Amino acid sequence: MGEFELIRQYFQPMADSARQGQLILGPGDDCAIQRVPPGRDLVFSVDTLVEGVHFPPNYPPEYLGWRSLAVAVSDLAAMGADPVCFTLALSLPRAEPEWLAGYSRGLARASAAFDIALAGGDTTRGPLTITLQVHGTVQEGLALQRSGARAGDLVCVTGPLGDAGAALDFLETAAPTDDQQAVLARYHYPEPRLQLGAALVGKASAAIDISDGLLSDLQHILDASGVGAELDADKIPLSPALVALKGNEALSYALSAGDDYQLCLTMADDQLSALDLHVRNQLITIGRIHSEAGLRVKNAENIGSRQGYDHFGRSV
Amino acid sequence: MGEFELIRQYFQPMADSARQGQLILGPGDDCAIQRVPPGRDLVFSVDTLVEGVHFPPNYPPEYLGWRSLAVAVSDLAAMGADPVCFTLALSLPRAEPEWLAGYSRGLARASAAFDIALAGGDTTRGPLTITLQVHGTVQEGLALQRSGARAGDLVCVTGPLGDAGAALDFLETAAPTDDQQAVLARYHYPEPRLQLGAALVGKASAAIDISDGLLSDLQHILDASGVGAELDADKIPLSPALVALKGNEALSYALSAGDDYQLCLTMADDQLSALDLHVRNQLITIGRIHSEAGLRVKNAENIGSRQGYDHFGRSV
Repeated sequence: MGEFELIRQYFQPMADSARQGQLILGPGDDCAIQRVPPGRDLVFSVDTLVEGVHFPPNYPPEYLGWRSLAVAVSDLAAMGADPVCFTLALSLPRAEPEWLAGYSRGLARASAAFDIALAGGDTTRGPLTITLQVHGTVQEGLALQRSGARAGDLVCVTGPLGDAGAALDFLETAAPTDDQQAVLARYHYPEPRLQLGAALVGKASAAIDISDGLLSDLQHILDASGVGAELDADKIPLSPALVALKGNEALSYALSAGDDYQLCLTMADDQLSALDLHVRNQLITIGRIHSEAGLRVKNAENIGSRQGYDHFGRSV
Repeated sequence: MGEFELIRQYFQPMADSARQGQLILGPGDDCAIQRVPPGRDLVFSVDTLVEGVHFPPNYPPEYLGWRSLAVAVSDLAAMGADPVCFTLALSLPRAEPEWLAGYSRGLARASAAFDIALAGGDTTRGPLTITLQVHGTVQEGLALQRSGARAGDLVCVTGPLGDAGAALDFLETAAPTDDQQAVLARYHYPEPRLQLGAALVGKASAAIDISDGLLSDLQHILDASGVGAELDADKIPLSPALVALKGNEALSYALSAGDDYQLCLTMADDQLSALDLHVRNQLITIGRIHSEAGLRVKNAENIGSRQGYDHFGRSV
């Protein structure tokens, strides 16, 4: 069996789970074909992960399979979109069955969890580089964008922050403690907030997923919307594990560390009040949008100087 | 100015040419947004180019800009689709202004020539790797596929073959002759057959673009359609430059060398006869589909043993 047959064998199962009939033609032709339902917009995003830049050398391939799809799908969550399909461009130094088995196992788990089918791809020989493009759909004209925040809106996040950043210290730990395992799980298996994002369509005024760190990503909303914000450090959600592991530094991780893939969003007070309780209960209000530019954090006197992880990776 | 600002500056102009209003939101948010018109299907394809594998080290960046988009768009031509937008995932060892200026100049020329707008992308630090995904649309249910060839159909191509393969011998030639320049132009500036592909929607029974070599790519149609074919070597179109440069070996280049990006298609006799003359005149009939499996070439006694360029790059 040739290398390409081997690769095809590992990835084919994810191509058979065509979702909702929207993926008309999957891998194997010059192009894949997707039929977008009337009244829906196509939203799509591309992410590249390079070994040694976005994940450590020798990072377990099964984690990488999940992570690589989860972080891409998180961009769909930030637009409020439902996932449909994805493409995978994979550069590999060589076709190692063990690595391919692990990577495709993690990818298949994520593909099933997020209900997203493999539409096509390209495999080339080269340094380990993974480029995924994810496709979703959202009600026409209603995709959540970064540019809609207005003065007076609340700033909310969807869960504890900083765990994945703290996990970087324990990636090599042989026998992690319970707290260490808790934050490691957040790094290895990020859970994009798809259902929550979809529930906020037409309700949130702006949204972004937190990949680079809360301050850095909220700043993108502020820049795109031409507004400023004040956060209350006392309101930033911290997990018990993060507090146990990092003590006074926990807040700094929550503000500046990336890789958590929670959402940060803005919303008018009355929109928040009108949300279904099960949606509202998942939102934590941490501040408010102001008309003056700038991002201020009150009650953060002891924050220290930790900076977000700059992975040399941004949208064009 | 930071590296990312520099990169954005080079690529932004291609994002401003939103085509036909179908690209609702371009680069800069979590996702781009495309609105597919009613009655159209979305078709898309991803291609990765790795330095040293798909193009020579130190290959001029302006050629690479054109080539990288042209070879991706060629997959749209093979489906009969109209281009709409593309994403670019670029790994670069470092942000060299000279390289970026050349690459983006070639890419912008191709973007304008093929009427396709930049929708988004990702830039990362890493070995030079270019992944492009192109999006087009085609009338619902009518995309040309590889699987539709039927016994009795004609096999046609859309222009001379083998030139780009022959050009590989002259990439380093300091002062190429006219013939050498003619084949080099085919390698550096492939012209995807977009208009011709679109004109064959509902008429051709199967199509593929010739990226790996005629025999190898036609075999994909035969495999997908469960048929065989016989070609007549005397009918294969050869350019005067290729014949002048390669003599008796010209046919072997035309059958097995890749990178020409002409289309190979199959079509019933009466469909061919019914085509507008300006479309029919661009098709060269080179053989016929048979119900028995296998690909035979008659009048090719002196073909030699030259093999197609295997670039370790296929669809998943």
